[in-house]
Amino acid sequence: MHIVVVGYGTAGLTAASYARLINRQARITVFEKRRYAIYHPCSLPDVIAGVIPAERLVEEAVNLPNLDVRTATIIEEVDTASRKVYARNLRNGEKVNFEYDALVLATGSRPFIPRNIRIEDSRGIYTLRTIEDSKLIVEAASRHGSAVVVGGSALGIEAAHALRKRGIKVTLIEYALKLLPGKLDEEIAKIVEDHLRGEGVEIILGDGVSEITGAEGSKRLTTNSGKVVETGFVVMATGVKPENELALQMGLKIGVTGGVIVDEKMRTNIENVYAAGDVAEVKDIVTGKPVLSPFASTALIMGRIAGINAAGGEAKLKGVLQNWIVNLDGFKFGAVGVTEEVARQSGFETVSVTVSTQDKPSFYPDSASVTLKLIIEANEGRLLGAQVAGFGNLVEKLNVISTIVTHGLKVYDIPYLEFAYTPSLNELVHPLYVAADAALRKITRRHTR
Amino acid sequence: MHIVVVGYGTAGLTAASYARLINRQARITVFEKRRYAIYHPCSLPDVIAGVIPAERLVEEAVNLPNLDVRTATIIEEVDTASRKVYARNLRNGEKVNFEYDALVLATGSRPFIPRNIRIEDSRGIYTLRTIEDSKLIVEAASRHGSAVVVGGSALGIEAAHALRKRGIKVTLIEYALKLLPGKLDEEIAKIVEDHLRGEGVEIILGDGVSEITGAEGSKRLTTNSGKVVETGFVVMATGVKPENELALQMGLKIGVTGGVIVDEKMRTNIENVYAAGDVAEVKDIVTGKPVLSPFASTALIMGRIAGINAAGGEAKLKGVLQNWIVNLDGFKFGAVGVTEEVARQSGFETVSVTVSTQDKPSFYPDSASVTLKLIIEANEGRLLGAQVAGFGNLVEKLNVISTIVTHGLKVYDIPYLEFAYTPSLNELVHPLYVAADAALRKITRRHTR
Repeated sequence: MHIVVVGYGTAGLTAASYARLINRQARITVFEKRRYAIYHPCSLPDVIAGVIPAERLVEEAVNLPNLDVRTATIIEEVDTASRKVYARNLRNGEKVNFEYDALVLATGSRPFIPRNIRIEDSRGIYTLRTIEDSKLIVEAASRHGSAVVVGGSALGIEAAHALRKRGIKVTLIEYALKLLPGKLDEEIAKIVEDHLRGEGVEIILGDGVSEITGAEGSKRLTTNSGKVVETGFVVMATGVKPENELALQMGLKIGVTGGVIVDEKMRTNIENVYAAGDVAEVKDIVTGKPVLSPFASTALIMGRIAGINAAGGEAKLKGVLQNWIVNLDGFKFGAVGVTEEVARQSGFETVSVTVSTQDKPSFYPDSASVTLKLIIEANEGRLLGAQVAGFGNLVEKLNVISTIVTHGLKVYDIPYLEFAYTPSLNELVHPLYVAADAALRKITRRHTR
Repeated sequence: MHIVVVGYGTAGLTAASYARLINRQARITVFEKRRYAIYHPCSLPDVIAGVIPAERLVEEAVNLPNLDVRTATIIEEVDTASRKVYARNLRNGEKVNFEYDALVLATGSRPFIPRNIRIEDSRGIYTLRTIEDSKLIVEAASRHGSAVVVGGSALGIEAAHALRKRGIKVTLIEYALKLLPGKLDEEIAKIVEDHLRGEGVEIILGDGVSEITGAEGSKRLTTNSGKVVETGFVVMATGVKPENELALQMGLKIGVTGGVIVDEKMRTNIENVYAAGDVAEVKDIVTGKPVLSPFASTALIMGRIAGINAAGGEAKLKGVLQNWIVNLDGFKFGAVGVTEEVARQSGFETVSVTVSTQDKPSFYPDSASVTLKLIIEANEGRLLGAQVAGFGNLVEKLNVISTIVTHGLKVYDIPYLEFAYTPSLNELVHPLYVAADAALRKITRRHTR
């Protein structure tokens, strides 16, 4: 059996590893267009901030028997009828082709720049996707005293924070009225905004960029409202799109999101072809709707399932929640499940509460506070999502809530969950208890109205 | 309606607060023998270590309408037939009595010193339960160059660590062959032992103390094996027992553990009398057996339930897991659910795995590792418990596993849980994934054997 994996990001790497685990006889070939096998894109902002040297983020391929990882190689074509892949080596131009029994498409995503932003001169305009990008941005930051980040996405915020750490003037422009639209509700997005402003990042909200002119060193951005911002260079963090070109060539069905439609086994519409990671369109656990999930955390889960199934095993994806966190030197924010906005758009009647509470007793020197929002289905009390911001242990909050939401637990269950307590680490009255009690009072008032 | 609460520790305080919340008309009277209302016993080791001044741990009573907290007052008798409590004020000797409609017994626990330890002279022998105890131990540590801690309990280990931080010689004696018997399995207890030895704590295992002689400054401990340890003073951390004297006087049924038997509503055998916290004997969620749960975390849950029910509401305790953690300046250990030893004694066929893995990518300067043990029921794959040790985010691991165990989830569910990831905080491949995969391989091998 020959399993071909296209792309060696988190999804591809994980698919190859689990295929290997499930089927020790199978030959596995991975094609990756990068010149290096593994890198850690989530750490690129830390390269810009100067926390980690870029070189540390590159790794050799995992050495597994019968696993052939071919870097600097692109797939030019896949013939799904004859089950053949046609590859070209970017180093020497050599072309090879292979037959496959199963193929896992894990081509990931690419930065997306909205077409309505007119770009006159692309010099001094960067995206942040590869090691090379991060090096170029570090160099630009050493040459210029200011930068504009376009896009109040998680990546945009991380980039703005990292550039501020290098001491340059940073302006962040987001066309929506709040940061992280679709990802955080307004009250939590406001906490993030206030924190960034406190770091000295200038923020322009509710105003898109219409035009970028000028050469590097004297870039000039014009917004829809006619505002003009002059800056040294620009980082575009306006989102990503599935890298679906090969999928289209193969005749794979593409969904409304632009991702490849897969079933719970990560199977596409073509037999023996699987898709996983940023390129796949999957089901949101809470809403049941098709979504993209461009996170390493879900790429890992999808890659696992695709790899197991491709190798003859059996694994199923219930759906994705999108449990994510951003860390700006201790100040953190993140979310799991749906926002209240998305929940309502999806037809849920919701009750929500937002509480700010100590995450560690105030008599400890490093006492921290955290803001926690819970989104609850009003009639049954099922937890639909949560958002967090602050200096406490937010990973813990998100991961507990992720377990709760995935398994359909209710706000009524929270007061009976036992949380480990020691005062030098956390508060006895867990923020989740505080939030659940506030929600229960709100639900009781609703019922007695 | 008059609700009487005896004891204002975590269970009593929480019971009073929730009774207040549920029933705004009820009069609530709390009796507490301490001279101050609230203190934080879990922070006493940090007082000894010099991290927090003792005074910071004392708090005024929570000021709630119609809630009367009487400190320095003991209950001399309760007549359950006429529903009357007879109280005496320790400050002025004044005696008062009250009728009650519901009573919550939350008398807590007291330090327990095994009778087979012969104590010739009690001067220079301390327990660690009150603010006064911590002050006395701090004073003793400033007078003497060495101390012996008797008992390798969590409190004993915290005390030994705190005394080492003060720079004195510390010897820890535990009669069992490992630290934390019944709380940690051997391989995890060994990690704690190695860490403590690394801090310079001398540890004697498998050897009980038979006799303590000599005055403070020249205490002499003789062990069962005839070893003699000379030291300045002694801290006894040999465990706690339910403070059940009043319960006995009242005619409450006491269980095998010495705690007051309660049902799922925290009701005792006598109508309108509830018990909660360290004094109550409750059901272990995993084994179904009666246990004591002398933790603030479970006192909070029990107090909530007792308070709600006493005030006319309705709440039920499924049981306790005992999810606990100890933090020694960053090195942490803890557990949730049952140990493998207890699981097997309770008739479970178990599979267990212990993995040591990075909790944060190695290319970050503060990369940390964590050891995680999972105890799994072999046939159904249900998670029964876990133990952790190391420098990572252990609160998070324990609290996720607590949610998993409480709701009967299986090891098969773990690979599909979504965990929030950002490389400056944690590793993409969550230690729980690593442990679950190891367990799944072990279970597969069992089935194919």
